[in-house]
Amino acid sequence: MTNFASDNVTGVAPEIMEAILRANNDHAVSSYGADKWTESLSEKASVLFEKEVTVFPVISGTAANVLPISSLTPSYGAIYCHEEAHINTDECNASEFYTGGAKLIPLPGRHGKYTAETLSSAIFGKGVPRHPQPSLVSITQTTEAGTLYRPEEISAITEVARSNGMKVHMDGARFANAVVGLGVSPADITWKAGIDVLSFGATKNGAMGAELVVFFNGADAKELEHRRVRGGHYLSKMRFVSAQLATYLDNDLWLKNATQANAMAMRIANCLKDVSSVSFVHPVEANILFLRMPADMVRDLKDAGFEFYEMSRNDPTLVRFVLSFNSREIDVDNFTEIVEKYA
Amino acid sequence: MTNFASDNVTGVAPEIMEAILRANNDHAVSSYGADKWTESLSEKASVLFEKEVTVFPVISGTAANVLPISSLTPSYGAIYCHEEAHINTDECNASEFYTGGAKLIPLPGRHGKYTAETLSSAIFGKGVPRHPQPSLVSITQTTEAGTLYRPEEISAITEVARSNGMKVHMDGARFANAVVGLGVSPADITWKAGIDVLSFGATKNGAMGAELVVFFNGADAKELEHRRVRGGHYLSKMRFVSAQLATYLDNDLWLKNATQANAMAMRIANCLKDVSSVSFVHPVEANILFLRMPADMVRDLKDAGFEFYEMSRNDPTLVRFVLSFNSREIDVDNFTEIVEKYA
Amino acid sequence: MTNFASDNVTGVAPEIMEAILRANNDHAVSSYGADKWTESLSEKASVLFEKEVTVFPVISGTAANVLPISSLTPSYGAIYCHEEAHINTDECNASEFYTGGAKLIPLPGRHGKYTAETLSSAIFGKGVPRHPQPSLVSITQTTEAGTLYRPEEISAITEVARSNGMKVHMDGARFANAVVGLGVSPADITWKAGIDVLSFGATKNGAMGAELVVFFNGADAKELEHRRVRGGHYLSKMRFVSAQLATYLDNDLWLKNATQANAMAMRIANCLKDVSSVSFVHPVEANILFLRMPADMVRDLKDAGFEFYEMSRNDPTLVRFVLSFNSREIDVDNFTEIVEKYA
Amino acid sequence: MTNFASDNVTGVAPEIMEAILRANNDHAVSSYGADKWTESLSEKASVLFEKEVTVFPVISGTAANVLPISSLTPSYGAIYCHEEAHINTDECNASEFYTGGAKLIPLPGRHGKYTAETLSSAIFGKGVPRHPQPSLVSITQTTEAGTLYRPEEISAITEVARSNGMKVHMDGARFANAVVGLGVSPADITWKAGIDVLSFGATKNGAMGAELVVFFNGADAKELEHRRVRGGHYLSKMRFVSAQLATYLDNDLWLKNATQANAMAMRIANCLKDVSSVSFVHPVEANILFLRMPADMVRDLKDAGFEFYEMSRNDPTLVRFVLSFNSREIDVDNFTEIVEKYA
Repeated sequence: MTNFASDNVTGVAPEIMEAILRANNDHAVSSYGADKWTESLSEKASVLFEKEVTVFPVISGTAANVLPISSLTPSYGAIYCHEEAHINTDECNASEFYTGGAKLIPLPGRHGKYTAETLSSAIFGKGVPRHPQPSLVSITQTTEAGTLYRPEEISAITEVARSNGMKVHMDGARFANAVVGLGVSPADITWKAGIDVLSFGATKNGAMGAELVVFFNGADAKELEHRRVRGGHYLSKMRFVSAQLATYLDNDLWLKNATQANAMAMRIANCLKDVSSVSFVHPVEANILFLRMPADMVRDLKDAGFEFYEMSRNDPTLVRFVLSFNSREIDVDNFTEIVEKYA
Repeated sequence: MTNFASDNVTGVAPEIMEAILRANNDHAVSSYGADKWTESLSEKASVLFEKEVTVFPVISGTAANVLPISSLTPSYGAIYCHEEAHINTDECNASEFYTGGAKLIPLPGRHGKYTAETLSSAIFGKGVPRHPQPSLVSITQTTEAGTLYRPEEISAITEVARSNGMKVHMDGARFANAVVGLGVSPADITWKAGIDVLSFGATKNGAMGAELVVFFNGADAKELEHRRVRGGHYLSKMRFVSAQLATYLDNDLWLKNATQANAMAMRIANCLKDVSSVSFVHPVEANILFLRMPADMVRDLKDAGFEFYEMSRNDPTLVRFVLSFNSREIDVDNFTEIVEKYA
Repeated sequence: MTNFASDNVTGVAPEIMEAILRANNDHAVSSYGADKWTESLSEKASVLFEKEVTVFPVISGTAANVLPISSLTPSYGAIYCHEEAHINTDECNASEFYTGGAKLIPLPGRHGKYTAETLSSAIFGKGVPRHPQPSLVSITQTTEAGTLYRPEEISAITEVARSNGMKVHMDGARFANAVVGLGVSPADITWKAGIDVLSFGATKNGAMGAELVVFFNGADAKELEHRRVRGGHYLSKMRFVSAQLATYLDNDLWLKNATQANAMAMRIANCLKDVSSVSFVHPVEANILFLRMPADMVRDLKDAGFEFYEMSRNDPTLVRFVLSFNSREIDVDNFTEIVEKYA
Repeated sequence: MTNFASDNVTGVAPEIMEAILRANNDHAVSSYGADKWTESLSEKASVLFEKEVTVFPVISGTAANVLPISSLTPSYGAIYCHEEAHINTDECNASEFYTGGAKLIPLPGRHGKYTAETLSSAIFGKGVPRHPQPSLVSITQTTEAGTLYRPEEISAITEVARSNGMKVHMDGARFANAVVGLGVSPADITWKAGIDVLSFGATKNGAMGAELVVFFNGADAKELEHRRVRGGHYLSKMRFVSAQLATYLDNDLWLKNATQANAMAMRIANCLKDVSSVSFVHPVEANILFLRMPADMVRDLKDAGFEFYEMSRNDPTLVRFVLSFNSREIDVDNFTEIVEKYA
C-alpha cells in the first residue's frame, strides 16, 4: 500500500526519532519543560522568525489552535474563519469549549481562502450588547484546499482585523509546506504580515506528535501556561515533545521535509497537466492535490495499492492526494505511469 | 545526580522505547487510533481486569482524569475528593473547566486517605436547587501521600457513593505501585470494589507520555470520544501512544517496573526504621517516602548528589523521596550508607 | 408617538398589573416558588396543553430558551435552528455559553421557516468523534419573519429530529400570536406535533417580564432547577413572576391579547393589499408586517409619529411593523389613512 | 403568621410598587434600558457614592454577583471568599459556571468575617502554571452571620488583594443594613476602602426583584453588557427594574427601610440581653439575630405564629431571626413579651 491519503498518518522522520532516543539517554533531566530542549525552543524559534517570540510545545494540532485562540477570545467573542477551517469543521467544538462559548463565524471563499473584503463585510455587532464581539480572525496556511495565501493577501486580512480591534491567528498545521510553496521567509507570512500567533505544525511533517504555539507578542502569551495545564496539555516529560521540535527546527529539517512533500505533489501535478480527463479542483501550491478524475482511473489507482481520500460519498470521481516528507519518487512515478495511460 | 525527586521525570523504559521504534517501522498504518496497537488495548485491558472494559489512550494524567470525570459529572454537580488530590491541587481547575463549572468538595483524611464515614457525612444538598448535586467520588490510588486504600476501604467508599447515586473515579497515576504494594489483582481494587472508571497511569512508570482511561461499564464511556477530540487529545498518530501502552501491559512490564520502584522504596524504609532521628510522616506502602529527617542529613544527601523534594519552605527537615522503575540498587545503597551514619 | 416598533417595549396589561398588586397584598407568602401562584402554574398549563406538563417561570426570553436548551444538549452537541433564529442572532452566544460550547448549525429557509428536508440534509457527523453530535432542533413559532409553521410542517421537522435521536425545542416568544393566527389548540402545535419543550412567552404579550418553560416530558426537566439557580434565574420573590403568568393563562387573557395584536396587523395588511406601491416581504400571519414601501410613505409615517423598525441601513424602504395587545384601532386607522393616500 | 424567617420573602415597599405603576403609565418608553429610569441610575448612584460609577440593573442577587465576578476573573482564576459566602454555598456553582471554571477558595473566620491575615496566608500559586491564579477577593457586607466589616477591616483586606494583583467584589445583598448599622457613608465602605465593584441589593429591602451592579472603575465594566445578555439578564422591559432601583435610591428610601429592619432587630437584641437562657451566636449588628434559646421558648414562639429559621436539624435550640423593612413594632413587642417570660 502506498499512502497518499494524509500526511497525518506518516511515521516519524529518522532525525526526529533519533532526537527522542537521545533525549531518553540524557541524564540531566527535569519535568514540565524545565529541560534544555524546551528551553532551546524559544531561541531557535526567535532566530527562525527573526523576532523574539514566546513559544509553547503541545502534542496536537487542536491543542495548538485552541490554547492561543482561547487566550485571545473572550467567552462573548466572535471568531472569523473560513467555513472549511479545521477549527470550524473537525475539532468537535474545541474552540467553543476552550473559550467558554465564543461563536465561530464561517466565511465563504474559493479554494479554501477568504478575502479581506469578505472578512470586512462579514464583521458585525461591535459594541452591540446582544451580538458576540469581533475578537479574533483565523486563517489557515496551507489551507484545507492545499492552497496558499500570498503575503499581501494576509496583510490585507490582518489590516481589516487590526482596524476592527481583532487579533489574528494562523493555523499552520502545514506551515512548512506554505513557506516552501511560496518561497518566502517564515517572518514574511507571519508577523511581518500582521499575524499575532501561529500554530506551527510538525506532526504532519515528520514529528511523532508535536506542534509549537508561537506568539509574536509576549503580552498575548500570558494566559497560555495556565490554559495548557487545565487543558491537560502540560506534560511531565515535555522534553520528548520539545526534542522533536528542536530537531525539527535544526538544520532546516522542517524545510527539507516540506520540500520533499511539495516536490512530490508538483511532480504529480506536472504530469496531470497533460491528462485532459483530469481536472484540478484547486490549484496545487503545496503538498495536496484535489482532483476530478475518471472513475476508471480512480479504480486503477486503488488496484495498484494507492490509498487516498474520496471527497464525496456520491461522486467517486472527486479525490484528494496528500504527499508527505516520506513520499518516494518511485511511488510517485508508479502513480504517474498509471495516470499517463489516460493521456 | 541521582533523581529521587519524582517518578514523573524518569526516562522511557527500554521495552517501551523499542515498541515506539517498532511502531514507526510498521507499514500498515492508520490515523486516529484505527491501528493494531490501539485496537489491541481493549482486549489486553479486558484480560488484565478480568472483565470487558472500554479504554481510551491519552497522553497526560490530567487528561486521563478530566475526560472521564467530565463524562460523569454534570456542570451543576459536586465531585468529592481528598483535599490533597491531584485534581484538586495541581491541575489548575481542569475538572472545573471540563465539567463546565462543577464544584470539588475537598475531604480531609490522614495519610492522604479519607474514609467512607468522612465522605458520608460530607455529602449534602441532594435535590436542593441551590446546591451542586452529588455526582462523582474520586479516590487516588496510590495516594498523594504514598499510601494505599485496602480493597475493603474502597468498597466502603463506593457503597456510600452508590447509595447516593454517585459514580466513582480512581486516579491511578500510580496504580501499578498500588497493585504491587497491596499484592492484589487489578480487579480487586477497581470494579470488584465498586470503581466505575480508572485513570491507569503509565507515564510515571516507564512510558514516554501515555495513560489509559478504563471504563468498567461501557455505557459510561459514550461521551469520551467527543470530549477527547474537543479537549485536543485525539491524536492523529495515536499509535505511538497505544504502542507504549500495549507494551506496558504485555508480559507484566507494568508490574515489573512498579515492583522495582516499590522494592527500592522499601529498601530505604527498612534501613530508616533503625535510624531514630528519622521519622515517617506517612507509612511507606508503595514507592514514596515522606520523612522528617535532621537538617544535617538533608544536607549530606544533597551534597552526595541526591535530588528530592522539600515539602515546606519553612521547614527543611520535611522531605519526600520517590523511587522509580529505573531507580538502581547501587544508588539506594549509597543513600542508606549516608543515612546510617546517623543511626 | 405610536409604537409599532416592537411588542417587547409595551407596558403591562392591566389584568397582569392587578395580579402583581394582589400578590403583594397577600400575607401567606413564601420564597423561591413555594407559593400558590407558582404552584398553580403546573396545573393551569397542564389543562391548557391537555397533558401533564412540568413548568418553570423565568423572567426573560433568553433564559426561557437557554435553560431548556442546555438541559437537552451536551457540550459536544449540535443545535439546528433557522439562521435568523433569536438564539443564533440576538443572544450573544447564550446557547453556546449555557451548553458549555455546543455549536449552532444555522439553516436557511424562506420567510423565516426551514423545512424538514433542509434539516434532514443538514444533519451530519453522527457518531464521528471529530464532529459535534446532533442533539437538538429548535424552531421559532411565530418566526422572526412573522410567519407560522403549520402543524404538519412541525410534525415533519420533529420526525426528522426524532429519527436522528434529537429533541425539539420551540422558541415561543410569540407563541400566543401563533395559536391565534393558526386557529389551533396549544397542543396541536406542540407535543401533538412532536415538540419536547416550549419557551412560552408572555413578556411581549402583556407581562412585565415573565416566560414559562413548558416541558412535555417530565424526564427532560430534571436539570432545570439547578441550571436556573446557577444562571441567576432563581428568584426569591418568584411569586411576582408567577402571578403574572397565572393571570396570563387565566380566562384566556393570553389569547385575548394576541387576538388584538393579530387583528390590528391584519387590519393594516388588508388595507395594504390595495396599495400597489407597497409589497409584502413576508406573508402576514400573526402580528408582524415586513414591508417594502416608498421612501415618501416611510417619511410620512414617521412624521405622523409612528415608530417602527428600519430593516436595513442602506435601504430605507424596507420596514417592519409589530402590533401588540395594546395597539389601538384608532392608531391603526390613522396609519392606514396615510398609506391609502398612495393607493 | 409573622415572618421573621427571611427578608427575601417580604413584599414590595409601597413607594416601589407605586414607581412600577408610574412606569407602566408613562408613554415615552423604550426597550433594553434606553429609558429614563435606567438612564437616571448612573447619576443617582454617582451622587450617592460621591464618585462617578458605572451601573447595571439586574433582577437577582446571584446575577448581581456572578456578572461582575466573571468580568474580573479568568477561567483559570481563584476567587477568595468566606466559606459561608452565598457565592460559595447557595448559588449552585454559578461563579464556577459564569467564569468558565474558576475555583473558589473558602476562608474560615469567626462570625462570618475573615481577616486580612487569613486572606494573606491563604493566597498561593501566583505564577505557578498548575495553580489557579489569584484573581478576585469577595467579601459579604452584611455578612451571612449578620455581622459587619468595619471600614478599616475592609481596607486591610483590599490592601492584601491589591498587593497580590487582585480585584475586590462586595456582595451587598444587605448593603443598606450595613450602611445603617455602621453609621457610615456608602463611599466609606466601598471604593474609599478599596472595593472595586459592589452588588448593591434592593430585593431584600423592599424591591420586587432588583439589584444594582456598581463598578467604581469604568474600565472594569466593559464586559458586563455582553455577559448580561448571554446570561439571559438583559430585559426588554428593563424600565420596570430600573424604576424600582431609582425609587430605592430616591429620598433615602433604601436607608429608611434598612433603618426600620435594623431597629427592630436591635429592639429584640436589647430585650434578649436580659434573658440569661438566651445566648447570641453572633453579635447583632444589622437586621439578623443568630440565637441559642431554650427549646421551650422556640416552641412558644412557633405557637404564637412566628416564622423563623432553624439552623440545625439536630439542634432545635439554634435559630435565626431576620427583620425586614416591613417588620412591625407590634409584632416585635409580641415577640419580646414571650421571650421575657423566660428572663
